[in-house]
Amino acid sequence: MTRGRDLSALKRAAAVHAVGEVRDGMVVGLGTGSTADFALEALARRIGEGLGIAGVPTSERTRRLAGRLGIPLLAPGDRPRIDLTIDGADQVERGSLALVKGMGGALLGEKIVASASDRMIVIVDETKIVDRLGDATPLPVEIVSFGWRYTIDRLAALGLRPTLRLVDGKPFLSDAGNHIADCDTGDIADAAGLERELSSLVGVVETGLFLDLASTVVVGRPTGIEVMRR
Amino acid sequence: MTRGRDLSALKRAAAVHAVGEVRDGMVVGLGTGSTADFALEALARRIGEGLGIAGVPTSERTRRLAGRLGIPLLAPGDRPRIDLTIDGADQVERGSLALVKGMGGALLGEKIVASASDRMIVIVDETKIVDRLGDATPLPVEIVSFGWRYTIDRLAALGLRPTLRLVDGKPFLSDAGNHIADCDTGDIADAAGLERELSSLVGVVETGLFLDLASTVVVGRPTGIEVMRR
Repeated sequence: MTRGRDLSALKRAAAVHAVGEVRDGMVVGLGTGSTADFALEALARRIGEGLGIAGVPTSERTRRLAGRLGIPLLAPGDRPRIDLTIDGADQVERGSLALVKGMGGALLGEKIVASASDRMIVIVDETKIVDRLGDATPLPVEIVSFGWRYTIDRLAALGLRPTLRLVDGKPFLSDAGNHIADCDTGDIADAAGLERELSSLVGVVETGLFLDLASTVVVGRPTGIEVMRR
Repeated sequence: MTRGRDLSALKRAAAVHAVGEVRDGMVVGLGTGSTADFALEALARRIGEGLGIAGVPTSERTRRLAGRLGIPLLAPGDRPRIDLTIDGADQVERGSLALVKGMGGALLGEKIVASASDRMIVIVDETKIVDRLGDATPLPVEIVSFGWRYTIDRLAALGLRPTLRLVDGKPFLSDAGNHIADCDTGDIADAAGLERELSSLVGVVETGLFLDLASTVVVGRPTGIEVMRR
């Protein structure tokens, strides 16, 4: 295991490797979070060297950072065909490359952009790789703010031990104006089944389960880069 | 068939009958739309005669109208146990009492409140009763505004012929800040299957299919009131 400054180096190495996959003329989905930020920096550097791409941000935060870095942007409303999305993850399941995402609060935009992309490259430090999704971090679930207590009750009735995410004592607001329920799922034996169950729950907008979306995972390890493919 | 002013009389008759089910001390979910408005008026009248209830509005519009009518309100955030919700519908399927709702743009709040209620009484004029859901009106689907074109594409790929709902040439905004895709589904042979399929679509917040929610449907006919139960 590695910590702090070392983790940043691993994240950055994974990000630089992934950005090496970007080709001139591509439309690139831009992830959100501390690891995705390294990809934005690497992308900005390559753009400075002459690479021509257009980015599609997955969040307001990423839109601002990409703008500051001089990355040309398309609005998601333009509905470009997206060649490649590069984003981080909170958990990556070995083998299936199923993900848990959403600790950063942008899972809805991330999932919409990833779902609209031909490929998704996930960049993580080695601490994010798990044998089975579940225990390492909570599963974020984006829920409608109207009547959120009812939705929390329904999540609890499924045994998911939900906690409403707070910021400064107030419910966290996503870019879309929703709240986040962080669910303590324990080991997730059947991710597809859980995804179906959660999706059909009234008040649930989207879950942090990203199944069949990542095509490649680039893992930063102290010993170098590992590339996992599906 | 009946039209115009006659329809209003049938809606009002159904609303008055349904409000007769409200008992002192109840918490009542308050629907949205032209028929639900008649229920608000009938409820306000009974409150004026001494009935003590608290209402939970399903929309901003209903909150305002109920406030003007002097109906005591709870915020949905208070998470009261809701005894009874009274609301209209765009289509009611004979037998199953499955509904299509959402022409009025408030399906999300309506579904959250109905799902949190012990009983849902639906009030309609006779033109809303169909043998099978589908053809009579479009199926409204509430979708995330971020990247809505991708979601419309996905709905189209399912063969649902979606149209983004516009108001004055701009995308309609729901109370929750989402858009509505009105889907031309044709006859819906398997409503539960369609609901599952739509719920699992990235970008879909909620559908206008209300299955297993209505316990009673009160139908206004020129010949009188018909009550359907499940």
